[in-house]
Amino acid sequence: MKALKSLLDRIAQRVNINLRELEFDVMPIAHHLVPLKQMTKFYAFYGITPNHSLSLEFRHSSLAGSYFLGRCRTNHSILYKTDVRGDELQKKGATFTFNGHTLTLAEDEIIDVQDSYLVKTLVHSYSHDPESRERFFVTNTLSCHYANIHGSPTDGSFLGPFATVDLTTMYDCAIGAYCYIQAGEIGHFHADPGMVWARSRGDFNFVYHHPLDRLKPYIDFVPGKAPTGVFMDFLEVRKKDFERVFDVVNLQRPKGIPSNASLDRYAVIKPKMHIAENVLVAQRAYLENSYLGKGANAQENCYIINSRLEGDNVTAHGAKIIDADLGNRVFVGFNSFLRGCPHCRLTIGSGTIVMPHTIIDIDRPLTIPANHFVWGMIADEADLAQNSMPLEDFARIDGRLYRGNLLFEGSGAAFVAAFQKRIEHILLDNGALFDGKRYKGHAQRNQNISVNTIQPYPEGRLKGMYPTILIQP
Amino acid sequence: MKALKSLLDRIAQRVNINLRELEFDVMPIAHHLVPLKQMTKFYAFYGITPNHSLSLEFRHSSLAGSYFLGRCRTNHSILYKTDVRGDELQKKGATFTFNGHTLTLAEDEIIDVQDSYLVKTLVHSYSHDPESRERFFVTNTLSCHYANIHGSPTDGSFLGPFATVDLTTMYDCAIGAYCYIQAGEIGHFHADPGMVWARSRGDFNFVYHHPLDRLKPYIDFVPGKAPTGVFMDFLEVRKKDFERVFDVVNLQRPKGIPSNASLDRYAVIKPKMHIAENVLVAQRAYLENSYLGKGANAQENCYIINSRLEGDNVTAHGAKIIDADLGNRVFVGFNSFLRGCPHCRLTIGSGTIVMPHTIIDIDRPLTIPANHFVWGMIADEADLAQNSMPLEDFARIDGRLYRGNLLFEGSGAAFVAAFQKRIEHILLDNGALFDGKRYKGHAQRNQNISVNTIQPYPEGRLKGMYPTILIQP
Repeated sequence: MKALKSLLDRIAQRVNINLRELEFDVMPIAHHLVPLKQMTKFYAFYGITPNHSLSLEFRHSSLAGSYFLGRCRTNHSILYKTDVRGDELQKKGATFTFNGHTLTLAEDEIIDVQDSYLVKTLVHSYSHDPESRERFFVTNTLSCHYANIHGSPTDGSFLGPFATVDLTTMYDCAIGAYCYIQAGEIGHFHADPGMVWARSRGDFNFVYHHPLDRLKPYIDFVPGKAPTGVFMDFLEVRKKDFERVFDVVNLQRPKGIPSNASLDRYAVIKPKMHIAENVLVAQRAYLENSYLGKGANAQENCYIINSRLEGDNVTAHGAKIIDADLGNRVFVGFNSFLRGCPHCRLTIGSGTIVMPHTIIDIDRPLTIPANHFVWGMIADEADLAQNSMPLEDFARIDGRLYRGNLLFEGSGAAFVAAFQKRIEHILLDNGALFDGKRYKGHAQRNQNISVNTIQPYPEGRLKGMYPTILIQP
Repeated sequence: MKALKSLLDRIAQRVNINLRELEFDVMPIAHHLVPLKQMTKFYAFYGITPNHSLSLEFRHSSLAGSYFLGRCRTNHSILYKTDVRGDELQKKGATFTFNGHTLTLAEDEIIDVQDSYLVKTLVHSYSHDPESRERFFVTNTLSCHYANIHGSPTDGSFLGPFATVDLTTMYDCAIGAYCYIQAGEIGHFHADPGMVWARSRGDFNFVYHHPLDRLKPYIDFVPGKAPTGVFMDFLEVRKKDFERVFDVVNLQRPKGIPSNASLDRYAVIKPKMHIAENVLVAQRAYLENSYLGKGANAQENCYIINSRLEGDNVTAHGAKIIDADLGNRVFVGFNSFLRGCPHCRLTIGSGTIVMPHTIIDIDRPLTIPANHFVWGMIADEADLAQNSMPLEDFARIDGRLYRGNLLFEGSGAAFVAAFQKRIEHILLDNGALFDGKRYKGHAQRNQNISVNTIQPYPEGRLKGMYPTILIQP
């Protein structure tokens, strides 16, 4: 186990050097994050398909539970139950447009993770950084439970539990628990817990701060201790259900799944689920007693329980939907927590957009009308009145809006348009719009994946470490 | 599936070129051997431990069910449910003695399999070829169900079902069903089914031919058809039991196993087994309602059912023991088939040696005394009288002995001594003699193996083929 311990130390030291200007010390966090003794028992995973170009290169990485699809590389990294998903990587010669310039990829895109701990973190490959298109690096980074690095080159950063960095290039930043940051390029920035920030330079700036006293019962993180609160408890009681799907080599595909829908082999599907056409259920999604209408998608780490989603719904990574009825094309952003109860259902009308990292937790029935925009912390009608607005009204903002803990500056129209464009892109990519011929997406392409498990050395000095593994097409 | 098909064709053509002098055509055999449709469903396995030096290199090999431990390499090979076990490979600098010369290994030994089909074949790494110590190659070889290439460089050969090539270097040979060949270097040799040949040039020559009419009910092989007979039927009805052990990622270790005994994770352990100290149970062994005394070993593909083995027993690869009582240190050679019945138990006294590829199949009780040597086909007392001899008497032979289908030439003493030396070596290697400090063997070293599964492309042109995989320490 010696090699694993010294790897842990080395990574923490490197992250600390990167964060020295912020005077942020990850050491007390680092040693609590990775269960050394468990690291020998975990498996890592990678998938192979003819549709994703393969280039895995693991060198003395310790990796557990990872899910590599598409080109990837990792080096001295501890990826502990982390999803690294390269299925949107572009190939050499692909073009992309940035600020009016059309650029061509000189090489296939790859994901490259070096000297990082990523604890139950999602790393996805939707690229955006115009400066580093071919290589998605995540270097000298320490990321806590259920964080989310979404399409993000990052270098020398800390992410607290349930933090999301979305379409962001970030250098030497410390991002607090449950922060959502989608801000283009940022550096040497320290975000306090519960910040929700979406910025497009020159267009708009959306900044919301969760009230810390109300956030604390949901997620509380003190360095040197495990995170606590409703989010962790919610996940903890459902952990057992995942053990079964990871313990069996060949799972029976549940019956009644349409041939153009895709159920990941490592999702938990409890009774009674209705799954319609073009539905995509990703790895580690958890579905129970719910209805997923045509083209709905359930992304990684999301939970959908006792709920009805009419169709073309996007339930983003880590979102939880309990006792709720969602109309058509409702978007629920990353790590949102929407909880009704059997006698107080949450109803959300068609076309409504729930901002990432929104908490709606009610003990009386609550209805959010169609085509609204919702954000922040909502426990009742009063919160809803403050933290929502018809999309049409939001699109009319031009200038500055203060509303409770929200500051919005710039063009509401640009903000709403950007959101709707992205939802369209997600539905298209996920195969929600597949018509039997056109618009094939993940739901149709990811159906047949060979999932491979790899294991570390079981004892000795290298205990918990993996051998060097190179896999090429 | 195109790539897999053309690989199959290419290998068969190469084997045919090698066997052109023997006018042996493997084409009709080749196309029947590998279930193309199944090849996408099978997994391949490799184990990692700190005790075995690792160097796996799979390049466009199609491999299923293989078990690589220790250095290995394979190339364009189809290894279909084959065990390749490199756990006796020697390291660079190790010395060995051959005909009085002491030689030193210039490199670590490796196993190298190229352009071969190996169907449910065992390939083991106990080296012997003085000309090719560092590299164990198995090139342009087609081997049928349950064949056994034991420590053998081989080049351009065909092995029929249940054939064993033991400590033999073989070039361009065709070895019939159920042949056992341990003859040093052979080339351009065609062995008819059921030949049992053990030769040490200058010392002894043991040649037995199973009577073909009596062998046929046990194993019958017609090119272009699957093998048939008692052996195949016996395996077929027990196939289901193996599915469970291969379908579950983490199996519970059965209780009551001594800490110095080793049960492979891919063995079938049915109720009620007694497993004593220093016992070694290898991969794909099948144990049911039996007693394994101290230091007994159950090697790959062996079956021990309703039997009692007192201790220090060697049950070699592929041997089957049913309704039998075996005294201390009874050796049962490769692929032997010993079948009593509930009311007609087979009893074998201590120290007795059962020659590889011996069939003892009785419908009345039969007792073989202690310290005897037994070979060939035995159904009753009369057969036993012809096909057995006290070891002491056998050791007295000096010259030529004809007895039934047996011809023995040379020194009986050398023959018996060589056998006993080998048994001693097997017990030592397997850890049967471990005293808590000294004589650690496989039973103690192989307890903690990380077993990894790998899978082929699930669809497309490469369906059934694997990506290139390189694994180094």
